[in-house]
Amino acid sequence: MSKLNEQANGVYIISATPFTDHGELDLASADSLIDFYLEKGVSGITILGMMGEAHKLTEEEALSFMQRVLARVNGQVPVVVGVSHASHRHVERLAKTAMDNGAAGVMLAPGPNLATDPQVENYYLSVAQLLGNEVPICLQDFPQSTRVHTSVPVMLRLIEALPQIVMLKHEDLPGMRKLSQLRSQSEALGLRRISVLVGNGGLFLPQELARGADGAMTGFAWPEMLVQVCQAYAEGNPGHGEDIFDCYLPLLRHEFQYGIGLGLRKEALRRRGAIKSAAVRQPGPVLDRIDLQELSGLMARLERKLADKGLN
Amino acid sequence: MSKLNEQANGVYIISATPFTDHGELDLASADSLIDFYLEKGVSGITILGMMGEAHKLTEEEALSFMQRVLARVNGQVPVVVGVSHASHRHVERLAKTAMDNGAAGVMLAPGPNLATDPQVENYYLSVAQLLGNEVPICLQDFPQSTRVHTSVPVMLRLIEALPQIVMLKHEDLPGMRKLSQLRSQSEALGLRRISVLVGNGGLFLPQELARGADGAMTGFAWPEMLVQVCQAYAEGNPGHGEDIFDCYLPLLRHEFQYGIGLGLRKEALRRRGAIKSAAVRQPGPVLDRIDLQELSGLMARLERKLADKGLN
Amino acid sequence: MSKLNEQANGVYIISATPFTDHGELDLASADSLIDFYLEKGVSGITILGMMGEAHKLTEEEALSFMQRVLARVNGQVPVVVGVSHASHRHVERLAKTAMDNGAAGVMLAPGPNLATDPQVENYYLSVAQLLGNEVPICLQDFPQSTRVHTSVPVMLRLIEALPQIVMLKHEDLPGMRKLSQLRSQSEALGLRRISVLVGNGGLFLPQELARGADGAMTGFAWPEMLVQVCQAYAEGNPGHGEDIFDCYLPLLRHEFQYGIGLGLRKEALRRRGAIKSAAVRQPGPVLDRIDLQELSGLMARLERKLADKGLN
Amino acid sequence: MSKLNEQANGVYIISATPFTDHGELDLASADSLIDFYLEKGVSGITILGMMGEAHKLTEEEALSFMQRVLARVNGQVPVVVGVSHASHRHVERLAKTAMDNGAAGVMLAPGPNLATDPQVENYYLSVAQLLGNEVPICLQDFPQSTRVHTSVPVMLRLIEALPQIVMLKHEDLPGMRKLSQLRSQSEALGLRRISVLVGNGGLFLPQELARGADGAMTGFAWPEMLVQVCQAYAEGNPGHGEDIFDCYLPLLRHEFQYGIGLGLRKEALRRRGAIKSAAVRQPGPVLDRIDLQELSGLMARLERKLADKGLN
Repeated sequence: MSKLNEQANGVYIISATPFTDHGELDLASADSLIDFYLEKGVSGITILGMMGEAHKLTEEEALSFMQRVLARVNGQVPVVVGVSHASHRHVERLAKTAMDNGAAGVMLAPGPNLATDPQVENYYLSVAQLLGNEVPICLQDFPQSTRVHTSVPVMLRLIEALPQIVMLKHEDLPGMRKLSQLRSQSEALGLRRISVLVGNGGLFLPQELARGADGAMTGFAWPEMLVQVCQAYAEGNPGHGEDIFDCYLPLLRHEFQYGIGLGLRKEALRRRGAIKSAAVRQPGPVLDRIDLQELSGLMARLERKLADKGLN
Repeated sequence: MSKLNEQANGVYIISATPFTDHGELDLASADSLIDFYLEKGVSGITILGMMGEAHKLTEEEALSFMQRVLARVNGQVPVVVGVSHASHRHVERLAKTAMDNGAAGVMLAPGPNLATDPQVENYYLSVAQLLGNEVPICLQDFPQSTRVHTSVPVMLRLIEALPQIVMLKHEDLPGMRKLSQLRSQSEALGLRRISVLVGNGGLFLPQELARGADGAMTGFAWPEMLVQVCQAYAEGNPGHGEDIFDCYLPLLRHEFQYGIGLGLRKEALRRRGAIKSAAVRQPGPVLDRIDLQELSGLMARLERKLADKGLN
Repeated sequence: MSKLNEQANGVYIISATPFTDHGELDLASADSLIDFYLEKGVSGITILGMMGEAHKLTEEEALSFMQRVLARVNGQVPVVVGVSHASHRHVERLAKTAMDNGAAGVMLAPGPNLATDPQVENYYLSVAQLLGNEVPICLQDFPQSTRVHTSVPVMLRLIEALPQIVMLKHEDLPGMRKLSQLRSQSEALGLRRISVLVGNGGLFLPQELARGADGAMTGFAWPEMLVQVCQAYAEGNPGHGEDIFDCYLPLLRHEFQYGIGLGLRKEALRRRGAIKSAAVRQPGPVLDRIDLQELSGLMARLERKLADKGLN
Repeated sequence: MSKLNEQANGVYIISATPFTDHGELDLASADSLIDFYLEKGVSGITILGMMGEAHKLTEEEALSFMQRVLARVNGQVPVVVGVSHASHRHVERLAKTAMDNGAAGVMLAPGPNLATDPQVENYYLSVAQLLGNEVPICLQDFPQSTRVHTSVPVMLRLIEALPQIVMLKHEDLPGMRKLSQLRSQSEALGLRRISVLVGNGGLFLPQELARGADGAMTGFAWPEMLVQVCQAYAEGNPGHGEDIFDCYLPLLRHEFQYGIGLGLRKEALRRRGAIKSAAVRQPGPVLDRIDLQELSGLMARLERKLADKGLN
C-alpha cells in the first residue's frame, strides 16, 4: 500500500460511519458505502473523522470499522484515518494501529485548549516526534469545531520542520485568504508544496481550487459533484466546474448546517442506496417530517436541474 | 409615522453605514444608499445593527446617521434602529432617542454573558420594563455573534409577557427547526403571531419562508432578489422564488463569510452605485486583488445567469 | 455495597489517576493513594473524573483502574465513577460496568454543545431513561470545563422527574448564589433534598457549607483539611472550620489553577507519599524548577502555620 | 505631568466608577474614592477599565469622570486611562483626549476576535502607529475577559518594535509561568525591561512578585494590603509580605468572583467610607441579604486577624 504524499489531489471523501436503526455498527453498510464512494470516482477515503462520529465509537468498534473499510477498499485508493485523541500516547497507538492495518496516512486535529501560536506548534511537534517520520500526517485545520486556530506562520514552520506533514485539510471559515497566503508564502520561502484539500462541505470549492487547493476532503452526499468540479479545474475548465457546482449548491448549503447536517447527509446517502439506515448515534440529529420533505424538495430540484443541463 | 407591528413582512434591509475612504461618516452616501434600497422595493430598513458597524461609531455619529436616514426615508417605509448596549440605561436612552426621531421600532440583542434560559428571559423583561409598552421591539436571536442562546420556550414566554415584542430577527444557525417550533408551539398555545424575519444573509430564505417566516432582515447587496423571493412565496409561487434564489446563491454564499463578508458587501454596493466608498472602519476587512477579482467573477456569472433566464 | 443516596455528605475525594514516570498506569500507586485517602478520613471516593485524566485513558486502562480501586476500597466507603461520554450508549455501557463492579453510583456531566435549558434537561432525561432507576446519578455542574450551563429551574425539574439523581457536584463559578437558590427553591417546592457536594478545589467551601452544601467533592491534596472543615460545620462550629480552612487557603488557591493545578496536585500527593510519580499524561503540565520551589515554599509555610496553631 | 514609564511599580489601583443609588454618575464619590486610594498609599490610579464599568458609560460620562479624577489627583500620582474600543479611530480619539487632559498613559486590551499570534501582533502595531510614540501604552493581557491570548513571543516582538509600550497588565490565568518566561526571555534577548503589574485581584501577588512582577494593578477594596505586600517584597522581606497577604486572602478570594465580585468590591468600598453607594449599573450584580452577611462575616474575621497580628 503506498503512503499518502504531497501529490494527493482530487476528492478524499470523508466517510460516514453507518449504524443500524438501533445504533449498532453496520458493517454490511460499510461495504456498500465504500463501493458507492469508489463508483463515484473518489481519489481517497478518510474515515473516523468528526463526521464519522469517531468520538461515539468504542475503540473496538473503531478498529473493526477501520479493518472492514481497508479490506473493502483493498488498495484501490489511499485511506486516511483520523487519530485525534486527548492523549499523545493514544494518538501514537491509534496511528500505529492504522498504519499496521494498511492506512495510507493519518489525520490529526490539534488538541483542545491551545490558545497561541507556540502552543499549537508545540502540539504538533510533540506528536510528530512520537509518530516518527514514517507516518504521513494530514493536518486538520477546523477551528469552528476544535476552537484552535492554526496561523499561516505556524503551518509554514511545521511544513519546514516535519517532512511527514504532507497534507492540510483546510477548513477554517472564512479561510480563502488563508489558503492564498499559505500558497504564496510557502512558495516565497521555497518550502515543500503540500497537498491542500478543502472541507466545510465544499461550500467554497470553486474559489478554493482557483486559489491553489488540490481538491476536497469532505463528506457531501453527492461525491460525483466534487469529483467533476475538481476534474474540470484540473483540466483548465473552471467555468464548467462552477456550472456543475452551482447546480448542487442549494443542497450543499443545506447539508452545511452543523449538527443536523450529519442527519441530512446520512439520509441522502440512504436514499441513494449507499447505506441501509440514516441513524446517527444519540445524542444526535433525528430528522422530522418537515426535514424529510424539505430534503425531498431539494433533491427533486437537483434532478430537474441536472436534466435541464444534460448533466445527469 | 406608524409603528412597527406583528404584520411586518417582506424585506427589512439591514443598512450598511457608509464611510469615506478615510473612514469619516459619509452622509451623502447614506442618502444614495437609502435611495438604492427603496428603489429595490424593500418594505423596511434597519440601521445601526452589527453589520452597520454601530459599535465603531461615536454616539454623535450614530445620531447623525440615524437622523439623516430618517429624513431621507421620510416615512416611506418603517425604520428599525439597533439599540443594543451593555447598559440598560443606555438601551433606554438610545431607544428614546430613536423613537423621538421617528423610528418605527428598535432591535435588541441580548446582553453578553447570559448563559441560561432564566438569565435571557430576565434580560428582556428588565429592559422592556424600562422601555415601556410604547416602544416596539424586534428581538435579535443571533447566537453566532452574541454567544447567547434564546430557547423557544423563552421566546414564547416573552411574547406572552411583553406586547411590545412584535418581531423576531431569526438568525440562529442551524435554525430552521427552531423556526418551525416557534410557529407551531406559539399556535398551540394560542399566542400572538409575531413577525419573523430571517437573517444569516438569507442563506436559507426559501426554506425559512416555507417554514413560516414572513420575510428577511438582512443586508445582501442585491436586495431585489430578497424582495422577489419573498413576493413569490407570498403569491404562492415558491418554485419561482427558489429559481430566483438559486441564481444568486453563489454570491449570497460568498457574502456569507463572517468578517470579510462585510467588505465584500460594501464593495458590491459600491459597484452597484449605492455608496461612494467600500471602506470598512478599522480593524476590519480590506479586500485584496484576488478578493476583488473573485467578486468580479461571481458578479459576471450572476449577470449571465439572469440574462439566460430573462430575469434581469 | 450500598448505593449512593441523598444523605451523602462529608468529603468525596476526587481521586487522581497515578502513572509511572513513563506514563503507564501505576496500579501499585492506586493502592497507596486509596489508602492515603481513607486514612485522611474521606467519606467517599470519586474516580475517573476530569481530574482523573479519564479522557486520556484507554477503555481497558479505565476498567483496570476502576477494578483496582474498588478492590482496595473494599466497601469501606462508596465509590462514584465518572461515566461522561459523547455517546448515550457508551454512558449506558460505562455505567453498567461501573455498577456491576461495585460502584455506589455514577457521575455525569452534560454532553457538549447544549446551549439552552430544554437542551440540557433533555440530555439528562434521555440518558437517565437509558440508565434506569437503579443507577444513582451525581450531576456534575461544571460549566468552566463543559461550557454547558445548568440553570436552577432545570435542576429542580430533574430532581422532580428523576429519583435516581441523588447528588449534585456543584462547581459553577461564581456559584454561591446558585447554591442558595437551589436549596431555597427546592424547599419551597417541597422537593426531595439531594446531596450537594462542592468542587472548584474547595475554594469557597466554608461559604458553601453555610449556604447549604453537605460537603466537598474535590481533589485537594490535603483531604484532611476538607474533612476537618466539613466536620466543624457539621458540629456547629463554623468559626473553627474557617480557621482551619484559612491556613490551607494559600495552597488551595495555588492548586486552583486550571491546567498546571493538576501537576501541582500530583506533585503534592507524591511528596506526601501517596503516589510514586507526579507524572501527568501528555499533553499536560510538567513542573519546572521554579514551580517546584514555589510549591515547597507554600508547603513550608503551611507546616509552620499548622504548628503555630497546634493544628498539625 | 510626567508620563508613564518602564520604572513604574507598586500599586496602580484600578478605580471603581461610583454611581448614585439611581445609577447616575456620582462625582462627589469620585473625589472621596480618589482620596481613599491616595491615603492608602497607591503609586498610581487606573480608570475606565473593565472594573470601572467603562462600557456602561456614555462618552460624556466617561470624559466627565476622567476630568474629575485627574483634577482630584492633581499630579500626585500617574493616572492611566483605559481606551479599549472596537474602532481604531476611537482608540486614537480616546487616547488623545486622555493625554490632553493630563493622563500619564493609556491601557489597551486587544480587540475582539483575534485568534492567532499574527492577528494580535498586528492589532497592536496598527493601533500604536495611530497613537504615535508619545502615548505610553500599558498592554492588558486578560484573556478570561477578552478571549484573546497574547503569547510571550508576541509580547517580546511588541516590546522590541514599540518603545511606547512601557507596561504590561499581566492578568492571564494561570499565568505565573508566562510571567517567568517573559522576564527570562526578554533578558536573554537583551530587550528593554518593561514594568509588569499583576491583576486578577492580586490572587497570586506574592508568587508573581517573586517571579519578577513590579507590583499590582487591580481593584481590591483593601489597597493598603497590596501596598504593604509590594513594599515588603521591594524591601527584601517576602515572608512578611506573604504573612500580610494571607490575612486578606479569604476576602481577596471572595472578591475574585467574576460578576458578583464587582458588587462585593463596591460594597466593601462603601462600608469603608470611600463611596456613598455600592450601586453597579444594570445589568449587574445586586447583593442580597445572604451576600451582605457573608461579606460582614469575612470582614469581621479580617479585623480580628489583623488585631491578633498587630497589623491593624
